[in-house]
Amino acid sequence: MRTSLASSQDEVRRHNLAAVLQRLHLGGPVSRSELVALTGLNRSTVGVLVAELAEQGLVVEEPGATGTVGRPSLIVMPQPGSAIVLAFDFRVDRTVGAVIGLGGKTISRVERFRENSESAPDLSVLQLIDMAHELLEEVPEETLWVGTGIGLPGIVNERTGVVSQAPNLGWIDVPFAQMVTDALRKEFGEVPTTVASNDADLGALAEHTRGAAIDSGNVIYVSGEVGIGGGVVLGGALMTGAGGFGGEIGHMIVNPTGAQCRCGSRGCWETVIGRAAVLSCIQDSKSVGDVQDVINSVLAGEVEVQDKLNGVGRWLGIGLVNLINIFNPEVVVLGGHLGQIYPVVADVVNEQISHALRAPREQVRVALPVLGEDSTLIGASESAFASLLARPMEAVGESSTFVTSK
Amino acid sequence: MRTSLASSQDEVRRHNLAAVLQRLHLGGPVSRSELVALTGLNRSTVGVLVAELAEQGLVVEEPGATGTVGRPSLIVMPQPGSAIVLAFDFRVDRTVGAVIGLGGKTISRVERFRENSESAPDLSVLQLIDMAHELLEEVPEETLWVGTGIGLPGIVNERTGVVSQAPNLGWIDVPFAQMVTDALRKEFGEVPTTVASNDADLGALAEHTRGAAIDSGNVIYVSGEVGIGGGVVLGGALMTGAGGFGGEIGHMIVNPTGAQCRCGSRGCWETVIGRAAVLSCIQDSKSVGDVQDVINSVLAGEVEVQDKLNGVGRWLGIGLVNLINIFNPEVVVLGGHLGQIYPVVADVVNEQISHALRAPREQVRVALPVLGEDSTLIGASESAFASLLARPMEAVGESSTFVTSK
Repeated sequence: MRTSLASSQDEVRRHNLAAVLQRLHLGGPVSRSELVALTGLNRSTVGVLVAELAEQGLVVEEPGATGTVGRPSLIVMPQPGSAIVLAFDFRVDRTVGAVIGLGGKTISRVERFRENSESAPDLSVLQLIDMAHELLEEVPEETLWVGTGIGLPGIVNERTGVVSQAPNLGWIDVPFAQMVTDALRKEFGEVPTTVASNDADLGALAEHTRGAAIDSGNVIYVSGEVGIGGGVVLGGALMTGAGGFGGEIGHMIVNPTGAQCRCGSRGCWETVIGRAAVLSCIQDSKSVGDVQDVINSVLAGEVEVQDKLNGVGRWLGIGLVNLINIFNPEVVVLGGHLGQIYPVVADVVNEQISHALRAPREQVRVALPVLGEDSTLIGASESAFASLLARPMEAVGESSTFVTSK
Repeated sequence: MRTSLASSQDEVRRHNLAAVLQRLHLGGPVSRSELVALTGLNRSTVGVLVAELAEQGLVVEEPGATGTVGRPSLIVMPQPGSAIVLAFDFRVDRTVGAVIGLGGKTISRVERFRENSESAPDLSVLQLIDMAHELLEEVPEETLWVGTGIGLPGIVNERTGVVSQAPNLGWIDVPFAQMVTDALRKEFGEVPTTVASNDADLGALAEHTRGAAIDSGNVIYVSGEVGIGGGVVLGGALMTGAGGFGGEIGHMIVNPTGAQCRCGSRGCWETVIGRAAVLSCIQDSKSVGDVQDVINSVLAGEVEVQDKLNGVGRWLGIGLVNLINIFNPEVVVLGGHLGQIYPVVADVVNEQISHALRAPREQVRVALPVLGEDSTLIGASESAFASLLARPMEAVGESSTFVTSK
């Protein structure tokens, strides 16, 4: 049993170290005493673990405020400059990129718009590399580069980083994570892993760890972008399904006799609550418009627009009933344009939700994203930080990658 | 670190013991060499673990067949008579009960029909106790009684055993598991824990561990009884949601302008593929009939019945598209009357499924239950065995319960 004992001892140490670093990364500065209480470890164990993290530069300790009695507890703080990730929210019409430091601090950020004609995979990679240059310029050399995370509006195999289908980009079977890694390597030499994920999955994770659904283990994030995406967190972990394709709630059929969906099916939720459905409340033609224009019309008292938007709200509610009955979540977060319209159609939506089964209905609340537009970007950064947080010492070991001169 | 080291050592031993017993319980007799290969433990560790289980009477060892060279490996066999559970499949019109032994062997089994008027919770408990007497008569005294598992057609909080809502029984907020435990205790003295679960959840678990979806981690079991229930296994574990109410796929709205559902909503999947929908293919009135009559009419060439049943098949397919897009499962198992009608409407169902998103569609197959009518009963027995399989030595320790004279 010697081998398994030794390895289990290592495993315990690793687990404890990860628990402490995760707490610091997500919760921010904390006293040693609070770490003792939070982790259930004893005082000396916490001391040893913090010392290890401090030695790697991941945290620093400073004396806290002096209380009425006794000496002040040391405050442990994550060091944003000690370890960074590159994060991208790759949308249909633009890309948002950022360097995020340990603890979640945004160190630099850029946003670039993109024409449809520039959305081919190879051109998109070029744009990303260009943004990476600009973003990393502000990072001191020899900073630990933990990873790169990308959110995309499509069906992504999160294990391989291959985009299986992204209808709004016109992509099919694009090995995007690998393409980005290869291009980054060409520019920067050794680079860490690139993780690609569905944008709504990342939004769900971000709202779960840092946003509207902290402390809730079962969370559904419904993203209203051009289409409708979904991310589902169950028992604290992202639901992926057999191949990482789970959570495509926008293609739940709610109106079988309705309009054709661009996925090839008919009456998908996306056809009745997607951006086009909202914009069509203000005019019959599908000419350029803005969701805010629709909301402004309602606020200005245009009854016809309100009626039409209520129709969208009813469909929103019908789909939410399904998700509540199927998943029994504590929180449903409405992102993008769904979060924009919810305040003006809340009555209609809630009337529908009252038809969900009593038991799951009593446990659920509808929430707006706390992270606003940045849910996916922050989720992408968390996906890139995951390797460091799971195994802190391995991530800062010999095989780790540092930002080099460009 | 002494404490956490010692406890982690215990934890490793416990984990290994559980792994070996689970393998034996689900997979049946196996040689020591195969246990070494299956568990990744070394030969002497496996020897120690098997000896511990043998000492408790849970397994026996016998020499296997002699090969061409070397001495025969010992064959380890679970002992069905060493530990048993009581399992009940509590349906709308009858209750099936069984004593199941370690390894999954049915030791005794009874089935009792029930009038609607006899379905009140207290009368139902009386019937169960009566069945328990009959079932346990065939079990030798001093046999380890691990637990009692019950599957019910309703929304059950699996942590508390409270039936929140069972429309077809007319139950609301019935603490059924506790009622059964209390009644069993009155009759038998000390009794083990009673676990109550949704019937389709148990069907899903049973087909996942012993039936049509072994080796698939993501499985949806759609049960067609009077209503439509659902059990969802994700990543090898049952999806429960916030309060244990997850998986109510029968109340997914697919036809918002359709018929009122007995849940109070409109156009639930259950209204278009429930038993009443199938029976209505043969006659407009809702008079007594049988699903097999409908199928026989189709097989006899009655075009009108075939057309109507195809309509049910289309709705079945529409709901399956939703589940495939939402969950990305490897297997969807169609239980009860859905499994009966599938063979005669497979073309229509599969045509609908072809509208699911390509990536999840390519990974899924539709299957019929391998365990037939017994999926829920076997799932109930597995839910009762869970405590023994998770912590074998604790379950046979001082606090364990044995079958006593009645």
